[in-house]
Amino acid sequence: MSFDRLIEKIIEMKNPTVVGLDPRLEYVPEFIQKRYLDDDGWSLKAASRAIFSFNKLIIDEICDIVPAIKPQAAYYEMYGHHGVKTLERTIRYAKLKGMYVITDGKRNDIGATMEAYATAHLGSVVIGENEIEPFGADALTVNGYLGTDGIEPLLKICRERDKGIYVLVKTSNKSSGELQDKLIDGTPIYAVMGDMCEKWGEDTIGKYGYSAVGAVVGATYPQQLTELRKRLPHTMFLVPGYGAQGGGAEGLKGAFDENGLGAIVNSSRAVMCAYQKEGCDERDFAKAARREVIRMRDDITSYINLK
Amino acid sequence: MSFDRLIEKIIEMKNPTVVGLDPRLEYVPEFIQKRYLDDDGWSLKAASRAIFSFNKLIIDEICDIVPAIKPQAAYYEMYGHHGVKTLERTIRYAKLKGMYVITDGKRNDIGATMEAYATAHLGSVVIGENEIEPFGADALTVNGYLGTDGIEPLLKICRERDKGIYVLVKTSNKSSGELQDKLIDGTPIYAVMGDMCEKWGEDTIGKYGYSAVGAVVGATYPQQLTELRKRLPHTMFLVPGYGAQGGGAEGLKGAFDENGLGAIVNSSRAVMCAYQKEGCDERDFAKAARREVIRMRDDITSYINLK
Repeated sequence: MSFDRLIEKIIEMKNPTVVGLDPRLEYVPEFIQKRYLDDDGWSLKAASRAIFSFNKLIIDEICDIVPAIKPQAAYYEMYGHHGVKTLERTIRYAKLKGMYVITDGKRNDIGATMEAYATAHLGSVVIGENEIEPFGADALTVNGYLGTDGIEPLLKICRERDKGIYVLVKTSNKSSGELQDKLIDGTPIYAVMGDMCEKWGEDTIGKYGYSAVGAVVGATYPQQLTELRKRLPHTMFLVPGYGAQGGGAEGLKGAFDENGLGAIVNSSRAVMCAYQKEGCDERDFAKAARREVIRMRDDITSYINLK
Repeated sequence: MSFDRLIEKIIEMKNPTVVGLDPRLEYVPEFIQKRYLDDDGWSLKAASRAIFSFNKLIIDEICDIVPAIKPQAAYYEMYGHHGVKTLERTIRYAKLKGMYVITDGKRNDIGATMEAYATAHLGSVVIGENEIEPFGADALTVNGYLGTDGIEPLLKICRERDKGIYVLVKTSNKSSGELQDKLIDGTPIYAVMGDMCEKWGEDTIGKYGYSAVGAVVGATYPQQLTELRKRLPHTMFLVPGYGAQGGGAEGLKGAFDENGLGAIVNSSRAVMCAYQKEGCDERDFAKAARREVIRMRDDITSYINLK
């Protein structure tokens, strides 16, 4: 119905960050790769099983520090349906460990088809007498280029099942301005899209003032972050681009409201590959991930006023 | 490298149409549902197997009439990783039958992540000494909201492996105008996106004059179809919205060039559910699909000049 469930976890853990689980087989330490690849042969199935093992061990080490994970669908699809099974298992395991799960799928389509995506990722499908959650995430990232028709089916599920969505508003990449910065009657497209988020969310505002419709705004654009925070008072931000993409913690300040709420900052590779950067024993990869999420939490919270 | 492979099939079959395989379990005739659901129980796996059987029988009946299928990823994801396995199997089977396969995924993301999607759907992943195609489609629909960063990784694979993409330009749904019709310096966003397609495709133009970068333009907007055909001479159109969504064949004329090329028109539900509309025995569902694709081909080609 809103992002209250997530915001409560953020407050409880004093940590407005989310770990992106975007695993490539190359990130998985060799001792895990070997365990699966030697047993099953070098297949999509073996790679997917190795990746699940990697994810699971990271989740075990971070679940008491970080409120949420954000698995990126692309990296699972890359290993075919076996990879997608690992996505399902990762979501299920993280939820079992009490984490909030945002599937980063940037899905978009027209009405009936968007309903299928909404059902897949946030809802449940009825087969005979059974009702089954195919993926069961708590929130999904989506692309709003198709307008309200593509968002309505999601809102329905958000209301019914207490889920949320994050709509792409101002993305963190270099070429995001090619379209998103263009002006419509003097207003950049990203702000127009942001206004649409406020409208889509207006009847799902929770007790912290934020609706079930959030926005993706990149850490690499601190000025737009600050501008959009003021413009979109009920829209929670999912902020990628911290760390590996070059967005610093100080530039993130503007994404938060006066209570240190209103945003959740993502880091993916810096956490998954912390062991490579540290140069520690690969068997310590999960501990290195833990050290990195603590460092990140302390870095970001040093700039905001989260009580 | 371009859409030549698809265009050749269109010319050979004298048929510029594609069948959207967007199956819901409800579309599958009961005799097939029973066969799988009774064996495996009412599970995502059983539903997915029933859907594959349905798809396969339709492909068998239409593969000598229709050059391409367009499976919509959402309907497969709705059945979890089992559904995604059915997507893989459907693609593989259609290719075995000589069909061109456009995966309708409307994927989008920034550089490295888009590379993962491109690898998943159009490319191959290397695991140890094996190179494996996870999905192996010929083309993918994508969303260009993120600009060039999100398209470049696809272009690379298009060039290397003779694949194509269709970028959302003017979608067929009612609310598509909320963003897409807004003006940037007097030019609607859909035309700006169309111009980007021309630019992205400029070094992949094939012998029929069309590049590897196509555009999705809805049959429900005949005026924009005609306008964009003139504006984007090297951009092939994928046209949804014929039939069930209300776009008629006459309005499609403007999507085609003077040789009857430059567009491929999609129909999904009208083909898959032809047996329901006809009211014939459900065991004749594939024959009814065949009758519908022949009717559609004749309807559309009666308005264009395809030699």
